[in-house]
Amino acid sequence: MDKINAVITGVGGFVPDDVLTNDDLSKMVDTTDEWIMTRVGIKERRILKDPNLSSGYMGTQAVNDLVQKTGIDPMSVEGIVCSTSTSDYHFPSTASIIAYESGCRNAYAFDIQAACAGFIFALETAANYIRSGRYKRLIVVSSEKMSSMTDYTDRATCPLFGDAGAAVLLEATTEDYGVIDTLLRTDGSGKSHLIMKAGGSLRMPSHETVDQRLHFVYQEGQAVFKRAVIDMADAAEEIVRRNGLTKDQIDWIVPHQANLRIIDAAARRLGVNKDKVMINIRKFGNTSSTTIPLCLWEWEDRLRRGDNLILAAFGAGWTWGATYLKWGYDGAKA
Amino acid sequence: MDKINAVITGVGGFVPDDVLTNDDLSKMVDTTDEWIMTRVGIKERRILKDPNLSSGYMGTQAVNDLVQKTGIDPMSVEGIVCSTSTSDYHFPSTASIIAYESGCRNAYAFDIQAACAGFIFALETAANYIRSGRYKRLIVVSSEKMSSMTDYTDRATCPLFGDAGAAVLLEATTEDYGVIDTLLRTDGSGKSHLIMKAGGSLRMPSHETVDQRLHFVYQEGQAVFKRAVIDMADAAEEIVRRNGLTKDQIDWIVPHQANLRIIDAAARRLGVNKDKVMINIRKFGNTSSTTIPLCLWEWEDRLRRGDNLILAAFGAGWTWGATYLKWGYDGAKA
Repeated sequence: MDKINAVITGVGGFVPDDVLTNDDLSKMVDTTDEWIMTRVGIKERRILKDPNLSSGYMGTQAVNDLVQKTGIDPMSVEGIVCSTSTSDYHFPSTASIIAYESGCRNAYAFDIQAACAGFIFALETAANYIRSGRYKRLIVVSSEKMSSMTDYTDRATCPLFGDAGAAVLLEATTEDYGVIDTLLRTDGSGKSHLIMKAGGSLRMPSHETVDQRLHFVYQEGQAVFKRAVIDMADAAEEIVRRNGLTKDQIDWIVPHQANLRIIDAAARRLGVNKDKVMINIRKFGNTSSTTIPLCLWEWEDRLRRGDNLILAAFGAGWTWGATYLKWGYDGAKA
Repeated sequence: MDKINAVITGVGGFVPDDVLTNDDLSKMVDTTDEWIMTRVGIKERRILKDPNLSSGYMGTQAVNDLVQKTGIDPMSVEGIVCSTSTSDYHFPSTASIIAYESGCRNAYAFDIQAACAGFIFALETAANYIRSGRYKRLIVVSSEKMSSMTDYTDRATCPLFGDAGAAVLLEATTEDYGVIDTLLRTDGSGKSHLIMKAGGSLRMPSHETVDQRLHFVYQEGQAVFKRAVIDMADAAEEIVRRNGLTKDQIDWIVPHQANLRIIDAAARRLGVNKDKVMINIRKFGNTSSTTIPLCLWEWEDRLRRGDNLILAAFGAGWTWGATYLKWGYDGAKA
């Protein structure tokens, strides 16, 4: 029996139309375009303004795009794994909403919470469903309405985040393509540095938590920056090393888009030219677990069958990881 | 190469000391012991009263119990998958907290949200990690501080829920034991019938949502009851049928403990004697995704290697499923 692996066979994405620029932000808080560009490299981000829409909606749009592009029957999808830190509800899962709304009504569905590294965790999870030989076709979707938990009175964090959804189709293969190797890491000592302090079971919403603005992203920028630079680069380096890849064999680095300086530092550590690094933080900001599939969506047309991609992400927890992907198909313009 | 499967090799659990009885509840809302016993079959439930402790704490206690009983080195655990609808925080994950606090510091960690069916989804997920051949030892932990989202002014729902955590050790095997087969189902049409209406990204906490008491479990009892009876029994029946098990070959039914009448109806449908059905709802109530591993924890001593167990659960989403487990070891008193 041939060994079964999982390969990405399509990518879909969705970004809201509304653009929030640095100039817009400079009218809301004490900041400037130059300050933001120098520190994090973000020029603008998309915001889902309609209060009746959230992660479930964007994830559905991304899956619809994926279904339309690949031409699959949505009823043939066996499972949907959704990574999100901005679930529409505590329960039911956002995945169950996306499965229903996108017409993937035969699919079992669940959410995964691994913060900004969520896509790598969800991709490895779905890949293992397929590697078991028991499932053949899953969708991994990441969707984040980061604006829902962004404090637009906090100049340090409000420039960082944007809203988006993106999805990949993952299918069984016996060829040597797909999710070749993944490294997942967690270190719970990071808990207090990057957190939403209230709203979970430890501190449910109350008038006090609302008044104290505890339902927003709290981030100690320096602590996160230091760990992200080291851990993301370490994970990427280790996955490259243990798969025997040389620098020249790496076609694309797909880093989590949290801060341009973190991306640059990681790329330098790997010794890879910057034109091999997917970067779209300038126009979309940090969309948490959506950043990596959103890059794949944007670069899809330039990818070729056999390309070696290194994905790397770091986020709250701390939780981080890296994946070596061998791309399975030629993009339309490749 | 032998086919690799995943087998449960240990169970741990934790319930808080504080007991909330029906008599206690009858002093808080207009209810009686008889009313509750007749309708749902719950006599008492455990409540984690300390406001500084939550799902992460109970999950850690359950993992500590598991580690102590099995004698494993916590540093040898490769991954921790936590199912919860009552995560300590929106982010980071409760799994990352449990991994850190229990000393499983080499383990990657993530949460799964599949409501009351969460343990079955998490178990199948961890099993697929192991079946891939890439991982050998994971812990699946379910932990739920249901009291954090129970409205103790609502007589219809406040008798239902209790707090608890439970965990299983899952290891690789090439023997014909373990997680033999699983059936996972989702139908997003159930969204509005069992939900926490606010607190997610679609409706973040505000003074209004607090005043309107939207951060509690909202349940349309009749709608949930009807679907739970049918879907849980259907899933269990299908898993029995497609694995060619006769009624006599089933040693134990392990149903989600939401309502004694749902359990009874499911057992009747399977034609299995009630003494083969694990039932502890009377003393622990509905602990959401924790109910099934909590039953395994309580019955562990009576289980024998080779016993055929059918797990079945149903919850918000709708999300439901069933698992056929062949038990891997003799309990201490078996």
